[in-house]
Amino acid sequence: MFNKRTKIKALLELAPSETQEYTVMGWVRTFRNNQFVALNDGSTINNLQVVVPLGLVDDALLKRITTGASIKAQGKLVASLGKGQKVELNATTIEILGDSDPEKYPLQPKKHSLEFLREIAHLRFRTQTFSSVFRIRHALAFAVHQFFNEKGFVYLHTPIVTSSDAEGAGEMFRVTTLPLENAPKKEDGSIDYTQDFFGKSTNLTVSGQLEGELGATALGEIYTFGPTFRAENSNTTRHLAEFWMIEPEMAFNDIYDNMDLAEEFIQYLIKYVMEHNADDLAFLDNRLKEEEKSLPMDKRNEFGLIEKLQIVLNNKFERITYTEAIEILLASPAYKKKKFKYDVSWGIDLQSEHERYLVEKHFKKPVIVTGYPKDIKAFYMRQNDDGKTVAAMDILAPGIGEIVGGSQREERLDLLLARMAEVGIPSHEMEFYLDTRRFGSVPHSGFGLGFERMVLFVTGMTNIRDVIPFARTPKNCEF
Amino acid sequence: MFNKRTKIKALLELAPSETQEYTVMGWVRTFRNNQFVALNDGSTINNLQVVVPLGLVDDALLKRITTGASIKAQGKLVASLGKGQKVELNATTIEILGDSDPEKYPLQPKKHSLEFLREIAHLRFRTQTFSSVFRIRHALAFAVHQFFNEKGFVYLHTPIVTSSDAEGAGEMFRVTTLPLENAPKKEDGSIDYTQDFFGKSTNLTVSGQLEGELGATALGEIYTFGPTFRAENSNTTRHLAEFWMIEPEMAFNDIYDNMDLAEEFIQYLIKYVMEHNADDLAFLDNRLKEEEKSLPMDKRNEFGLIEKLQIVLNNKFERITYTEAIEILLASPAYKKKKFKYDVSWGIDLQSEHERYLVEKHFKKPVIVTGYPKDIKAFYMRQNDDGKTVAAMDILAPGIGEIVGGSQREERLDLLLARMAEVGIPSHEMEFYLDTRRFGSVPHSGFGLGFERMVLFVTGMTNIRDVIPFARTPKNCEF
Repeated sequence: MFNKRTKIKALLELAPSETQEYTVMGWVRTFRNNQFVALNDGSTINNLQVVVPLGLVDDALLKRITTGASIKAQGKLVASLGKGQKVELNATTIEILGDSDPEKYPLQPKKHSLEFLREIAHLRFRTQTFSSVFRIRHALAFAVHQFFNEKGFVYLHTPIVTSSDAEGAGEMFRVTTLPLENAPKKEDGSIDYTQDFFGKSTNLTVSGQLEGELGATALGEIYTFGPTFRAENSNTTRHLAEFWMIEPEMAFNDIYDNMDLAEEFIQYLIKYVMEHNADDLAFLDNRLKEEEKSLPMDKRNEFGLIEKLQIVLNNKFERITYTEAIEILLASPAYKKKKFKYDVSWGIDLQSEHERYLVEKHFKKPVIVTGYPKDIKAFYMRQNDDGKTVAAMDILAPGIGEIVGGSQREERLDLLLARMAEVGIPSHEMEFYLDTRRFGSVPHSGFGLGFERMVLFVTGMTNIRDVIPFARTPKNCEF
Repeated sequence: MFNKRTKIKALLELAPSETQEYTVMGWVRTFRNNQFVALNDGSTINNLQVVVPLGLVDDALLKRITTGASIKAQGKLVASLGKGQKVELNATTIEILGDSDPEKYPLQPKKHSLEFLREIAHLRFRTQTFSSVFRIRHALAFAVHQFFNEKGFVYLHTPIVTSSDAEGAGEMFRVTTLPLENAPKKEDGSIDYTQDFFGKSTNLTVSGQLEGELGATALGEIYTFGPTFRAENSNTTRHLAEFWMIEPEMAFNDIYDNMDLAEEFIQYLIKYVMEHNADDLAFLDNRLKEEEKSLPMDKRNEFGLIEKLQIVLNNKFERITYTEAIEILLASPAYKKKKFKYDVSWGIDLQSEHERYLVEKHFKKPVIVTGYPKDIKAFYMRQNDDGKTVAAMDILAPGIGEIVGGSQREERLDLLLARMAEVGIPSHEMEFYLDTRRFGSVPHSGFGLGFERMVLFVTGMTNIRDVIPFARTPKNCEF
């Protein structure tokens, strides 16, 4: 058994002891004065100071204690005189586990640009910023599962490969085992998908919602949490071709129940991270403040990172209808001074600039907008009695815009069929979905939360490629 | 707000009350004597008996209370005289939420075959068997996250779409946006992947391990839990083209630490389900006993479902080397009587029949086999000093065979490079992986657990298509 180490996170919370011997293992962040190792093992953003007493090891070994090298150290925990730490390890043995040639190691003890670190995404986990981001990403993921588990939801693994393209949420990736060089064709010249692995044309899923509804209308309340895909050629700081999404779906719930749950959910996630990742958040809060110093005043965020999270945590979300949102925008100084790039009128899809105006300037807290025009929303959303709008809801958050999109689903078979015909979705491809409306249909609703958007929001990072381990974007599929 | 219901699971644990009024919503399982509704809402395998007093509703409504219909009922909780339940709901109002035409509803209150239910996978969640299976699947998934979270592991979302094919774990699905009808070609006639979405040839992942190692050698301990894919044309009860896998990876761990963790992990999962899903397990235990009555004696399982789980829970796993396993097999009565279909000699890949002999006949408990011949294992496994074997481990479980495969990874750059050259893996495609051995390399190990295999094991189901919501297999991609 090799692993007899104590994790640095646990060690830093212990009191000094004159008798207890500890073993630590980790990577050297810095080595000062041939004496002070700042050691990190990934369990916390904080380093353990390992003191190498004069004469403990020979010069040859001292030279191998370099940034990036991995070491094993044993010793006693003593009170530290250094600032920022209560204890340090007084080493009695030091062993090199793996060397790191300082001439070649790409991570030097200095500030690297996020762009550079993206190129070496396999090593960026070793930096303070990214280890914080990925510990927080973990905490958020765990909080997602804990939230739904506590409420009795069933985690449903909806399929990744699918033959359904009814949702129409975006362009799709094809999944195939046919040879591209010479794909088999039918007599009419079209591709013969009966020879493909699944015997039909298949894609990567864009959403697990439709399958989620099948689960919810039997198990009551379910949620998905899995990868989803968009083959959109969008090279922006907000888009990924592969991202993770959370989609709860609840039987016996209407749009108001849906809003309540989504609000509670977002606040739960934020509270969880504030309680469990205070050190990481403090670091990222400070990092953001430093970053913003180089920006002109009008580009800086109105609130600091932790301040922003507290605003979301401590305020009821504002609830307005789409129609009210349009009225607010039309009456706004921004509109009158022609500050919006996109025009405003009833029927438009709200643009990011509109959403951010509502949240950041007008209400200064998260906003839930409901009752969108049916023509800009999906076919499965429940039609309101006005004949014009559907029971949709979007949640808009400061600094990020839309973070949740959801709706009550159309549970009335006749209305659903009519809407499908209207938008041209062939009902014979959707028999399984329609069955839930044929047999014991119930009012139900659900929403989707883009997980990376949530991680962006909580970490204060600004490029979505920096909150997923290995980003997939157009012309980029490294690692 | 529509949802003011109490879930049936919670209600069944309450004491009768003469004052408190409850609302329940769910689907009718059966309706006896125009009086007794067996209502289920998916929160538990147990139905709530809703008593409809004579004259409460008119005949037209009574006729609509059919199997599969959804209803909302209000009333008081009273002590039940019926068997198997302590309380029942004495209805004061009954409302039909959604009808279910008994002539058309595919799920009748009788036993359906698993094959038939597979065809209507969108409705099988409404049966006792499948609601139990999917509640247990949920519980297992949550237990996975809780286990690793408690230990300070970071949940890492490794990529689904990948350009790497180094692991060689099996045939892969291509992911592409190129038109199959007329994929662009280079001058030499080969496909021009620079025009594909990612600018190169891409596939669905077969394992997150290599990326997991990148995380572990910075964050310390990580795990993945995500979908993985095999484009193998295997139409068996044990194979899926899309399945979920859990892959922990630990820095500073050797093969013995790895075994300890895997054993603790499996026992933790089983214990969690036995504590949280006792009703579901009791049902499945009984279901299996009934199923087996139709089998000849020699095809029946040696142990009942719960009995089998207790054996795994209460025994230290046996640990033997591959060489010892071969010796045991060669000395076995089964071998001497030529009962094995596949021959036994040092160097073979153990077949399912061999694994099950070791577990079920010889040791009668789970077995961990270590030290496999290097030629039948992957390039990244750590080479033992004998020059012949690697620090691999497989965990074999009763009734299912291999459930976990893992190894200590080769952390020595020179030995890793030599092995890659030997098996023909070009090192230039793996620079990112090799960097972890160049800069602060550490002893590390990990394993993979096929999640559906674990669900099979815990539920006693025998076809892997019955433990995933919507199975993907050759020529089958429905829903």
